[in-house]
Amino acid sequence: MTLPARLQTAARFTRQCYPTLRAVRRAVPARSFSASATWQLQTKEMTDEQLASLKVNQGRLMEDIHHTCQWGTGQKWGDKPTETGMSRLALSDTDKQARDWFVETTQALGCTTTIDAMGNIFAVRPGLRTDKPPTFAGSHLDTQPTGGRYDGILGVTAGIEMLKVMADNWVETEYPVGVVNWTNEEGARFPMSMVASGVWAGSIPLETAHNTREVHPGTATMASELSRIGYLGQTPASYEVIPMGAHFELHIEQGPLLEMANKKIGVVKGVQAYKWFTINVKGRDTHTGTTDLKSRADALLVASKMILHSHRLATANSALASTGILNLKPGSTNTVPGEVSFSLDIRAPKDSTVEAMAELIKKDFSTIAAGEDISDSNLGCTLGLPCEVTITEDFDSPATTFHQDCVDAVHQAAHSTIGPDAHDKIMEMTSGAGHDSVYTSKRCPTSMIFVPCREGVSHNPREYCKEEDCALGAQVLLQSVLRFDRMRDERRVTWKQEPYKL
Amino acid sequence: MTLPARLQTAARFTRQCYPTLRAVRRAVPARSFSASATWQLQTKEMTDEQLASLKVNQGRLMEDIHHTCQWGTGQKWGDKPTETGMSRLALSDTDKQARDWFVETTQALGCTTTIDAMGNIFAVRPGLRTDKPPTFAGSHLDTQPTGGRYDGILGVTAGIEMLKVMADNWVETEYPVGVVNWTNEEGARFPMSMVASGVWAGSIPLETAHNTREVHPGTATMASELSRIGYLGQTPASYEVIPMGAHFELHIEQGPLLEMANKKIGVVKGVQAYKWFTINVKGRDTHTGTTDLKSRADALLVASKMILHSHRLATANSALASTGILNLKPGSTNTVPGEVSFSLDIRAPKDSTVEAMAELIKKDFSTIAAGEDISDSNLGCTLGLPCEVTITEDFDSPATTFHQDCVDAVHQAAHSTIGPDAHDKIMEMTSGAGHDSVYTSKRCPTSMIFVPCREGVSHNPREYCKEEDCALGAQVLLQSVLRFDRMRDERRVTWKQEPYKL
Repeated sequence: MTLPARLQTAARFTRQCYPTLRAVRRAVPARSFSASATWQLQTKEMTDEQLASLKVNQGRLMEDIHHTCQWGTGQKWGDKPTETGMSRLALSDTDKQARDWFVETTQALGCTTTIDAMGNIFAVRPGLRTDKPPTFAGSHLDTQPTGGRYDGILGVTAGIEMLKVMADNWVETEYPVGVVNWTNEEGARFPMSMVASGVWAGSIPLETAHNTREVHPGTATMASELSRIGYLGQTPASYEVIPMGAHFELHIEQGPLLEMANKKIGVVKGVQAYKWFTINVKGRDTHTGTTDLKSRADALLVASKMILHSHRLATANSALASTGILNLKPGSTNTVPGEVSFSLDIRAPKDSTVEAMAELIKKDFSTIAAGEDISDSNLGCTLGLPCEVTITEDFDSPATTFHQDCVDAVHQAAHSTIGPDAHDKIMEMTSGAGHDSVYTSKRCPTSMIFVPCREGVSHNPREYCKEEDCALGAQVLLQSVLRFDRMRDERRVTWKQEPYKL
Repeated sequence: MTLPARLQTAARFTRQCYPTLRAVRRAVPARSFSASATWQLQTKEMTDEQLASLKVNQGRLMEDIHHTCQWGTGQKWGDKPTETGMSRLALSDTDKQARDWFVETTQALGCTTTIDAMGNIFAVRPGLRTDKPPTFAGSHLDTQPTGGRYDGILGVTAGIEMLKVMADNWVETEYPVGVVNWTNEEGARFPMSMVASGVWAGSIPLETAHNTREVHPGTATMASELSRIGYLGQTPASYEVIPMGAHFELHIEQGPLLEMANKKIGVVKGVQAYKWFTINVKGRDTHTGTTDLKSRADALLVASKMILHSHRLATANSALASTGILNLKPGSTNTVPGEVSFSLDIRAPKDSTVEAMAELIKKDFSTIAAGEDISDSNLGCTLGLPCEVTITEDFDSPATTFHQDCVDAVHQAAHSTIGPDAHDKIMEMTSGAGHDSVYTSKRCPTSMIFVPCREGVSHNPREYCKEEDCALGAQVLLQSVLRFDRMRDERRVTWKQEPYKL
């Protein structure tokens, strides 16, 4: 498809997806929108006080969160029924159940839903103008295998709560407003995190994503699982076909900074850089009882030295290095493993630090595999036979800086919501974790809102965010989206510039 | 059952299992034993020259080895059809096929077969005397997941070749002669090596063995798999019910010593001591991007330090330390693992060395888990949160000394087989690996015969033993069993003493 043809498709799609409010008023059944009602609140005509009076319903939000957690319930950690973790891997049967709920709920709220070729679900509520893309709130419903109830889920359910508040109060936005559920954000089942927003942004080829296999020992691909659960959409997964006016994402911090500083809202200005690698070490399978230490090519001993060394490099470079997956072959107590494969996740605030770490890893891991010494790593060891090492870079996410207009909208929303002591409760911060907002920020103005989670623990069943903090975050999300809707006219010239071209 | 009652059962069983030669002559069909033949060669009446003239058939032995390797064929490493490894895990469908072949083949050679409650298969050829237990040749048909064609398989097929040579030459032994296939010797699928000979010897309770679960991620137990493949025998797995007069085991060395010294036969005088442990490290699952190094309880980083430290302790104590299995949770690139479990195999020639290593491991692993320093292990590291460690001893095999009579029989057989330059080709040695002979030696006179394998490599698809070395080993096995048969009368007083009480 040539570029002009693609853009024509996009324009046609936009017309199909974002009908006028009037058209919806005709189409939506009376039980959702009363036939006698009129659209009373237009965001452009609201005073700041009127805007601030729109409030999320904390109880209803928590009900939605816990309702969705019936699908893929994980490890129990407390006595209450809601005190369990989550284990809802992307494109599993339980993920399908959560997706079905998302589609039904947003459609009942008057949204049009579109499923793209990566299974991303875009639910759009019409605005007064039909010629411009919606302002989205978005996150993800998939979880880690031993994850919690808030990572991703809070952002999606807060987006739905936003739609409910707007429906309850007959709010009429200038532009359409949407909620998006991104596929496989975690990268836990299919080892490429944020892969589906990456395809949407044009950063990851669709074929690469579709062919990505689930982690050991499964063999399914993303394409086969999308098809199996009925979420392989016909619409291309592309920012050109499904454009966004902006993307706001509410998320738990997943770190301890807000809690330690006694802050309530993190205004996220960007995301740290990171790279993911797969390291493969090849030695030789031999018998543990009959092979002396110097006749071994022990792939696990070499991998252990590498993992320890990556931690030392991270310490020396003020970076992070982590190994979350390790598989070995053949896996028998009395056989020295001949092959080990492990993941390596390198992060730092600056791209240059991550690059430097990657270079050091490549150089030093070869040295370790060859059996040579690095800062006394072989002290007290028996020199064995050399192993081979191959290092594959699976994923590269450069440092991200969010759009100032979105950051401003979140700041204003947070100040308006918290009131007089806002400056004590708000903190500007950089996200340590990647999020779908990293990819959306390449194609539309984006920012994020963080709320504290207990002890900074995440990717753990005990992950916990207080009810009032969930609601406060959802309130700031609602206010940010509505404020941004009002700002779009004033500032649209900016967005016509690179890189967004809206 | 009281002891006298048990012994009565044993005597009854012996009568049932070991019929007289005359009875067999009547029962065995003509195609196996020619109706016109007479029993010409009685071992007690043979000259040394006559004994030495009984020869194994190298081609037939190799055919049997490769024939059985059609069940559970493993990784290809060369161009010839027989140049593949093996992957025949204990009690799998392919193990069942190999067992069925063993039963059919030995029965066709006039043996009575008995299957015990551990699935051990005892095939017994009658002797002149029915009141004494058979002299056995034995090994195992199960393999490592990425094993070779010789470990275990050579010993069993050489036992069958022994039966064939005896049938061809109408050899009449004084005592019954048997071949035994022991279950799950490798401990690869069910992580307790030599478990079935261990139950037979009374060293491992039947219930413990039956309840042993297969390694991650399977869930079957030995009992369930024995039952599934039809090898859960009715006969108790016990040396009291199925007594042995002696146990000889032919095996590849699995180490490089014979090859390096250009020797052909290893006369094995004993087996080194070893212990197996499972180490469990508990930390906390946390997000790799948002958790700084000092806020982590990284179970895999701690496990890596432990594995490296166990190698250093082994180096310092002239022992062996090996980790062949490692599993972690939850297993996601961007989650710091909160739990790691790994195997640790400690070996040394002396029990006291293994004991000392075990004590050091217990002390030092606790120190490492607590985050404290051991010989600069934390140099350059960021001190994180402490982890918990639990160490379980799964298996203890003290150093074994084989019976001098059996060792003498192997020496004589090897000298007679090799001839004038025997002293250049024979080497006395200690086995580095455990074998079922470790357990049989607790209950009957036992020894082993080693043959060289290429580069000492075993537990690897490329494991290889030259055809002439396989045949030479089988010849020494045959001669050892026959010579021992002649020695039993002369020396039976010795065997009435502790610990055998035959």
